Parts: sequence; structure tokens; C-alpha cells
Amino acid sequence: MQTILSVVDQGLPQSLDKLFEILRIPSVSADPAYVHECRNAANWFKNYLESFNFTTKICETEGHPIVLAQELSATNAPHILFYGHYDVQPVDPIELWKIPPFEPCLRKDSEGREIIHGRGSSDDKGQILTFLEACRRIYQQTGQFPVRITVILEGEEESGGEHLPGFLAEQKANLHPDMAFICDTDMATPDVPAITAMVRGLVGEEVTIYAANRDLHSGLYGNAARNPIQVLAEIITSLRDDQGRVTVPDFYEGVPEIPVDIRTKWQEIGKTNDNLLTPIGLKEPAGEKQFNAIEQTWCRPSCEINGISGGYEGAGFKTVIPAKATAKISFRLVGKQDPIKIRKNFRDFVSNIIPKDSTVEFESHGASRAGMVSLDGPVLETVCNALKDEWNCETAIVGSGGAIPVVNDLQKIFGIESFLVGFANVDDCIHSPNEKYNLRSFHKGIRSWVRILYALQEVKL
Amino acid sequence: MQTILSVVDQGLPQSLDKLFEILRIPSVSADPAYVHECRNAANWFKNYLESFNFTTKICETEGHPIVLAQELSATNAPHILFYGHYDVQPVDPIELWKIPPFEPCLRKDSEGREIIHGRGSSDDKGQILTFLEACRRIYQQTGQFPVRITVILEGEEESGGEHLPGFLAEQKANLHPDMAFICDTDMATPDVPAITAMVRGLVGEEVTIYAANRDLHSGLYGNAARNPIQVLAEIITSLRDDQGRVTVPDFYEGVPEIPVDIRTKWQEIGKTNDNLLTPIGLKEPAGEKQFNAIEQTWCRPSCEINGISGGYEGAGFKTVIPAKATAKISFRLVGKQDPIKIRKNFRDFVSNIIPKDSTVEFESHGASRAGMVSLDGPVLETVCNALKDEWNCETAIVGSGGAIPVVNDLQKIFGIESFLVGFANVDDCIHSPNEKYNLRSFHKGIRSWVRILYALQEVKL
Repeated sequence: MQTILSVVDQGLPQSLDKLFEILRIPSVSADPAYVHECRNAANWFKNYLESFNFTTKICETEGHPIVLAQELSATNAPHILFYGHYDVQPVDPIELWKIPPFEPCLRKDSEGREIIHGRGSSDDKGQILTFLEACRRIYQQTGQFPVRITVILEGEEESGGEHLPGFLAEQKANLHPDMAFICDTDMATPDVPAITAMVRGLVGEEVTIYAANRDLHSGLYGNAARNPIQVLAEIITSLRDDQGRVTVPDFYEGVPEIPVDIRTKWQEIGKTNDNLLTPIGLKEPAGEKQFNAIEQTWCRPSCEINGISGGYEGAGFKTVIPAKATAKISFRLVGKQDPIKIRKNFRDFVSNIIPKDSTVEFESHGASRAGMVSLDGPVLETVCNALKDEWNCETAIVGSGGAIPVVNDLQKIFGIESFLVGFANVDDCIHSPNEKYNLRSFHKGIRSWVRILYALQEVKL
Repeated sequence: MQTILSVVDQGLPQSLDKLFEILRIPSVSADPAYVHECRNAANWFKNYLESFNFTTKICETEGHPIVLAQELSATNAPHILFYGHYDVQPVDPIELWKIPPFEPCLRKDSEGREIIHGRGSSDDKGQILTFLEACRRIYQQTGQFPVRITVILEGEEESGGEHLPGFLAEQKANLHPDMAFICDTDMATPDVPAITAMVRGLVGEEVTIYAANRDLHSGLYGNAARNPIQVLAEIITSLRDDQGRVTVPDFYEGVPEIPVDIRTKWQEIGKTNDNLLTPIGLKEPAGEKQFNAIEQTWCRPSCEINGISGGYEGAGFKTVIPAKATAKISFRLVGKQDPIKIRKNFRDFVSNIIPKDSTVEFESHGASRAGMVSLDGPVLETVCNALKDEWNCETAIVGSGGAIPVVNDLQKIFGIESFLVGFANVDDCIHSPNEKYNLRSFHKGIRSWVRILYALQEVKL
């Protein structure tokens, strides 16, 4: 294994070249304009995986295709499923990117750290390649793998992930993995590796309010005509009370208490308000008043407005009352909160409070339950130890505010647990302009997976 | 005069050709992309006015130019100032136009009326040309004018009208008009001509809320990070109370009571809730509960949200918390409400209620007081009678919800009253897709001005 780690070190420039190749493909899944680029990204992964002995196929869905790759020659060794997503977030506001989003490069940040620039560098292409480059180096040196590996790369993680559960269900008869690994999460700090044991679920909703049958002159009609922007603002306002709690009926049903010892441990590794908020220029947690920022994002549910649009948005001023206004609203879920029930209760809530002369239309944008990994068992210990060997410190068990719906699907369909081992950092600007991935994360991430894969060979299930 | 009216009738197709020429120029003043088209429109009017003996010049401002034209040979006759605006509103949402906005044409509506299609056909190019075509026909037939005439056409009425007051102030020494006429308002009904005696003022404000120093992933930060869209929604909600009243401190200072006899007269000519709201698909006035829709729009002040924008507005879904969100907000003023004071109170109000971790920036988009014309005096009677001759019914004295700031400026700078005589109709879709102007308004509008101009010749001031 030490030889392989040396090869990883010496081959880092070539690993980076591979990463830059895939970062140049603008596989934005939410925007129909990039549908062909998503397929290009899938094809790139197919060719890449085949180059180190994976049997790979592009599986069609009604949306973007899914890459399924397997190397199962390590008979009797555990069978791990690695999940990642080759799609990326949209890039707007494009004007805030210092370097174009799909022109990856290595540069130094203000603190002198080497960072990999580009949309997808952290979320999730860079993280995927820590795992796959580990596999490639192992195969190059040894011609075989220590465990059986199935790789599934989807193209709709950033746009609802609608077709993945159906695909996984279809694979149930053919695929018998023992556990899953996902590399789409953060480290505890830039020096402390982490396994994410709690992941929030998501309900995405688009709400459109209609009033008059056309846009109106706000002088001629203002006061008398119902204004859909005003109605939408009132809906948004009514979704939270003055304690920061979400007001949708029964919203907190299934939300667990946070164990005191877990809260204490997080404070010990420096996970406080400042830790989360200072880097983004904020000071005070905006959610439920009795929880700190880490608790609010890792293990409390939430309601966020992700976009709003209505009336005249161009330069200057237009005295219009628009015929409609739209907001994109998401709920983050924890514990046993039921996304289907929350969607229904939200829609009923809105439909009941809108005033006369307004109507509402809803559009769904994904629904997933929260995920939770059990904290005992041999795999978790094995992985923690492998990470400790690489990073020279204890591995932290943490939560994540972001939804990784696949965790729940894998549990439901294959009955397996997912281990979320990621090397991203909180300042990676995922979903924002100037997304980056630390070169150190990429390098030591590859090394970490080499260690984990060999350690898993020995695990008794 | 009868000969001239006949010439107007026979020459209507040629008058329409002139109108179509100017309607083809997309002089959208709010959008910097159309700056050259605004100049093209000004130049078109210069050439046109010179063709019937007006001495004309293009006066530069720091914004769009102003057209100043004079024909003062009718010594001893009254000197009237005619004001209009050659700029038009933006055309979005462009996809709702049945015919492109700058391809004017004559067509029949669903009730069989002939209508003139195109952005600016009613607001204000078509209305301007009722006056100017009357002038052109009078000059063609007689080689002279019954009164002295100054024409001022500005290019920023739809985008704040910032430079007009300064221009008028500069003209004060050279220009000594006795009264002003403006053709930018509606008839009482398609059969009943109207003079608009009350016009609301306007304060336009753009409000931008900032929170985090960049866009954030709403999973990783949602709950804990202040969301500017949420803050903006709460501001908008707090601008009105549950009785529909505007909550900005001292907002109603200077708002006059509506005389009971005026309210009664409006009901007599059918100005009720249904009259205003039914054509736009609404039923119930959305403003202050104790006033009907006509009262709310003609003589009560108001606050409207004209545009809102923030976060991801494209197709699909993006789980982002944006770094900022913006709304365009306007106040309509009546009576003696002070726009400067209201702007200040509004800004203080917002600055005081925004939560921690958010900041606000304001941008001004125009400010004007309400206008009010005195209801006695020889000019009003003369004009009413001239209109009665053309339309065969009493002229209605009405209010208008829309701001025509120039009324106030003309009063202040020249000490003159403005008579708002317009031939538009409430269903003209000004500021909306599919703007139109009734051919009957255009035709009888020209005839009305011929009558008014000859009648004014005799007025003793």
C-alpha cells in the first residue's frame, strides 16, 4: 500500500489533468440548455472508468443518464457501492466569477493555499475523483482491487434527483452491495476528517401567485388591484413565527431531540456560531432562537426562500402591477419528518391564507427524507481508523445541512448503510461563484481512499 | 372649422400613417439599450413639427433629449403649452404580445371595434398625435393657427422624468404660456369625454437587502444564515396593515377627504368597483377597506410593489440563499402629501425594522407631488363645451391614479394650470402587453382638438 501512496503522490499532476478534463464539461442539470453537456459528462466517466477495468454502461432515464460501473473480481471481499453525481449547479450570477466557471485551474488563495478552481471542483466532481483516482492507481500498480466495487454516478442530484430511486429499484435484483460510500460532504475542519452521520432531507416547491388577468399600470390600478408580489411576500412572512419556527401545521412532527453529548462534542471541535457564520460575514443565527448555528443547520428543520421573481426586474423603474409572481421555496427535513405530508400541509396552508382575487399554483421540485447512519458496527470503526492514519487525528462524527437523498434510497432499496466520507471544506463556495476544492483535500483524499479500500478488505461483516 | 373637420375625416388614413411611423420607433426610456431609439423618436417629432411651420429644436439633457417646438404667430391669442412624452414603457413579458409591440397595425377587437395596435399607441404617441394632427390639418387648410402654441415632448416620462423640471426651469425666462394641455389620460367611458382634475403623485424607490458576503448553499446554511428574500418579504408585508392602510409613519399627512358630492357623481357615471375591476378579472378592491376601487385609485394614496428579484429565477430549482434581494416599490400620492418627506420616512421605517445581519441600500426613482386643477374659470368651461360639441354629451370631471408629475412642475415654474384632456380608455392595456388605442379615440380626438383650439381663440383670460 505504501507503494501505491507514493504513486499517488508522484502522479498528482496527472490526477489533476483528469479532474480538469471533466471540470471543463458544463454539466448543469437544472437548465435544459445543458442537456447535451450532461451526456458528455456521463460519457467521459464511462471512458475513464473503462480505462481501469470497470465494466461500464450508460443507463438511460427520462432525464439525464446514469453511469453504472462495476469491478467485481475480488471474490469473497466486501462489495461496496460508491455513489456520486456528475452534474453541477447553475453558475449565475456569472459576473461574480473571477475566472470563468468551466475553465479549471490551480491557483493560490489569499492564505497561500493551493486551490482547484471551477464549478464542480468540490461538488461533486473533485470529490468523486478522490475515490476513482485511488481506484485507478491501485489497478495500475496491482492489476486488481482489494474489494468488489460498484460505481453509480447520477446526473440529476442538483435538480431534484427524480429518476435515481426508480433506477436503483430496477437494479435491486442484480446488485447486492454490502455498504455504500459517498464522497459529497465536508471535513470537520481543514485538518480534521469527518464522517457525516446526519443528513437533512428536502422538499422543493415552486409557488406562483396569480391575480389580475394581465399586467397593470400601478398608477391606474394601484391600491384597488390585488398585487401578487404583495401576496407572495405575505405568504413568505407567515411561514416563520417570531421565534424563527416554521409555521406549517405539524411541521415538527418526527423531529428528534439532539443528544446533549453530541451537542457538547460539536462545541469541543469548535463547531459554534462563529465557525459557521464568520466566514460568510454574518454573526447571529437566523433560525430558531434556542439553537446555535451548527445545530440549526445540522439537525433542525428549516424553510428557505431560494428564489423570487415578479414584475419589472430590469434597469430603471416600471410602474407595473404584474399578473403573477413566483417563489422557489425549500424545506430541509430531519429525523422522521415526512416530505409528502409536509408538502401537502404547506400547500394547504398557502391555499388557505391567500386573499380574495388571487390564485396559487404549485410545482414540485424533489422530496427526500433525512438520512441517519448508525454509529456502531465494524465499518465505521475501520473507516475512522484509516482516516486517522492519513490525517493523524481522530475522525469527527458530524451532521450536514445539505440533502443527500440517495442515503435514504439506498437504505430503503438495498437495506444498506451509507458512509459519507468527504474532503470538502466549508469555504469551498459550492452552489456559489468561485467554487474551489483545496489541492490538499484532493491529494490526501485520494490517499485516504487507498487506505480505506485496503482496510475494508479485512472487515468481517 | 367645419371644412377642417371634413379634412380630418378624409385624411384619417394619412394621419394613421404618421402615427404608425412613430410607433415603429422603440423608444423605451427605462432600458439603456434603447437610448438611440429615444433620440430617433425625438428627431422624428422635430421633422414632423417643422413640416407644419413649428420652429423646433432638440434640447439636450443628461438623459434623453427634449423636443421644444413653437408657433407663436397668432399675436394676441392665448398661448398654450402642450406637453407629451415620446418615450414608452418596456415591453416585457414580450411573449404575451399577440403582434410584436413595434409593428403597429389596425385590427378589430373581439367586439368588432377598430383598434390601433402597438406599444405607445395610447401612452402617449397616439394621444400626442390627436393634438398634433389637429394642428397639422389646421395649418394645411388655413396657413395659420388660432392660438400661440408651444409643444414640449420629453423622453423620460416612463423612467422617472428626472431632467424635465430642470429644463422647464431654464425655459422660464423665454416661455410665457397662459395654460397647459396634456393628452395622456382616459375618457370617462368610451362615449363620455373627460377632463382629469386630480392626478396622483409618485415616489419610486428601489430597495436592496444584503446579508451574507456571497450566495450560500441553502442546505449547508439554511436556518442559520439570514435570507435577504425573507427580510424583503417581511418589509413588504409590514408596509400595509390588515385594513389595507400604508404603515409608513405620517404617510397620510396632507391627504384630503373626498367631497361627498364628487363621490356621488362618480357613482352616477358608473364608476364603481365592477367598472374598474371586472375587465381585469378581479372582484374586490385590495386597498383601504372603507373606499371603493375608484376612490382607492383616484384619490387615495397607495404603496405598490412593482418588481421583486432575488436568488435563482431560472428553470428548475437551485438550493441557494442569495447574498441580496431587490424590490422596486412605489408610493402614489394625493393632495398635499410630501414626496420628499415620505421617501425619508419610508427609508427610516425600513432601516429600523431590518433584522441583524442584514443591510439595506436605497435608490431613488423619481418623486412628484399630486396635481389638482381648479374647477372654475373660463378655460375649463370652454374646453368642456368644445368636447360636448364633438361627443354630444356632458364632459365628466374625473381623477386619475397615474402620476403626471409635469402638472405640478408647470404650476410651480410657470404658475399655470394644466388641463388633462385625454381620449384613452381603461382597457387600452398601457404598460401591459397588447397596448392599443381605439381608432374612434384617435379620429374624434383629432376633431376634438380642432374644436378646442378654435374655441380657445375666443377665451378672455
